[in-house]
Amino acid sequence: MRDLYKIALCQLLVTPDKKNNIRNAEKSIDEAAGNGAGIVCLPEIWNGPYDTKAFGDFAEEESGPSVMFMSDAARRHHIYLIGGSIPEQDNNKRDGDGKPLVYNTSFVFSPSGKIIAKHRKIHLFDVDVENGVRFKESDFFSAGDSLTLFDTDYGKMGLAICFDVRFPDMFQMMAKAGAEIVFLPASFNMTTGPAHWDLLIRSRALDNQFYMAACATARNPDASYTSWGHSCVATPWGDFSAKTDEKESIVYATIDPSYIQKVRNEIPIGNQASS
Amino acid sequence: MRDLYKIALCQLLVTPDKKNNIRNAEKSIDEAAGNGAGIVCLPEIWNGPYDTKAFGDFAEEESGPSVMFMSDAARRHHIYLIGGSIPEQDNNKRDGDGKPLVYNTSFVFSPSGKIIAKHRKIHLFDVDVENGVRFKESDFFSAGDSLTLFDTDYGKMGLAICFDVRFPDMFQMMAKAGAEIVFLPASFNMTTGPAHWDLLIRSRALDNQFYMAACATARNPDASYTSWGHSCVATPWGDFSAKTDEKESIVYATIDPSYIQKVRNEIPIGNQASS
Repeated sequence: MRDLYKIALCQLLVTPDKKNNIRNAEKSIDEAAGNGAGIVCLPEIWNGPYDTKAFGDFAEEESGPSVMFMSDAARRHHIYLIGGSIPEQDNNKRDGDGKPLVYNTSFVFSPSGKIIAKHRKIHLFDVDVENGVRFKESDFFSAGDSLTLFDTDYGKMGLAICFDVRFPDMFQMMAKAGAEIVFLPASFNMTTGPAHWDLLIRSRALDNQFYMAACATARNPDASYTSWGHSCVATPWGDFSAKTDEKESIVYATIDPSYIQKVRNEIPIGNQASS
Repeated sequence: MRDLYKIALCQLLVTPDKKNNIRNAEKSIDEAAGNGAGIVCLPEIWNGPYDTKAFGDFAEEESGPSVMFMSDAARRHHIYLIGGSIPEQDNNKRDGDGKPLVYNTSFVFSPSGKIIAKHRKIHLFDVDVENGVRFKESDFFSAGDSLTLFDTDYGKMGLAICFDVRFPDMFQMMAKAGAEIVFLPASFNMTTGPAHWDLLIRSRALDNQFYMAACATARNPDASYTSWGHSCVATPWGDFSAKTDEKESIVYATIDPSYIQKVRNEIPIGNQASS
């Protein structure tokens, strides 16, 4: 029997003011850590608006203020912090015009504040739904090309960002590599949110018999991109153990690592996996 | 713009009387074809009870009465018939004791009554859920080892049986091979039915942006294995276009092949697929 532990998802309300966003994240992390969460997760693009026109203004190198703040918060509270994502500018990689590439990047911090993993969103959000959402993330971001897993004192964790969730292979590979929770900083919208959010989170959890922890931004009615919210944790059985609505809040869930093995014994699909 | 067409799923009530089961299937197929369905599907193990103790009594070779009946029904109505599944005895394959192997097999018939495909369930239903369902299909059946696709005048179709639905790879391979609908003769139960049936059918459809047509047996309160029922059709957008409850009935759905391409254009995940 392994120990239970608590995780927290900070569903932050994001504004066009970076300093305010950092202050707000700090308050939320303080509260989550104060309530006993050993792992805290932020949402996708939390330091500025989710908008191809804004990404450039909020992009930072690895030494930027958003990253420094997160490192400090992890160290101060002695928690693992999955830093949602921010636009990450990589001056070592340039396009044909010599401009640095920018990624949609999630930094992960150890309880000593060290960066222990970094996931660059692999599958960029390029969609055009009739009478619905239209967005082309690849107009601005470059795509990552690597799976991201990291070890913690609680077990091995996986990490993916938002649209990545539509690619089942990625999650199967993380399951095979031993991930017990896959964290998913995200920001679905008013078209695909009601249609697909619950379904995708629950099915990735059920298919792989691990936990999925999906942390979205809160809904800001003034934003050009309207977030669906509904941060949630799905269990290896495919049901939700925690879930919120569209408002700013913190979602807490208790993780039971033994439950993963229990479900895998009860419905042993791993024994029949095709690859 | 390709033509719309109608499919039907016959949610049959199965009894321990094979002749009665065949008569009942005939009545249902007659009605479905009479109502204009060009493709009709039967449920998993419809010629006898879903019970490891009964499978042997109802097993047939490819020349058996259940297969002959289905061939005749397809020819008579000039429809494609996906014959759910029956226990299929293969006298050319024997175990160590010389006993013929038996498979959980779905035969598919052309409008001329010819067998055009045959799917042997690949992933056998071996589960043991605490305070829930317990079943070991592999005590009796041997497992198939091949994907099954077949061409029709309506387009290319895929075929899988019940527990196969828990293996996303299989469905991705069928999507890549061009399947527009995957038919799933099935028989979930009172544990995994309410927990996972909707989720699995919808997510296979959404992940692969094709139609899923899942045909279950009706609930028979006298049976040792209690079927969940709820035959349904899920669209490439991941919602249900047709669904029934647990009682004997026929589910009809209109298939729009153009809608598959529309959804794939709107959310073009195929362009970013990892393999």
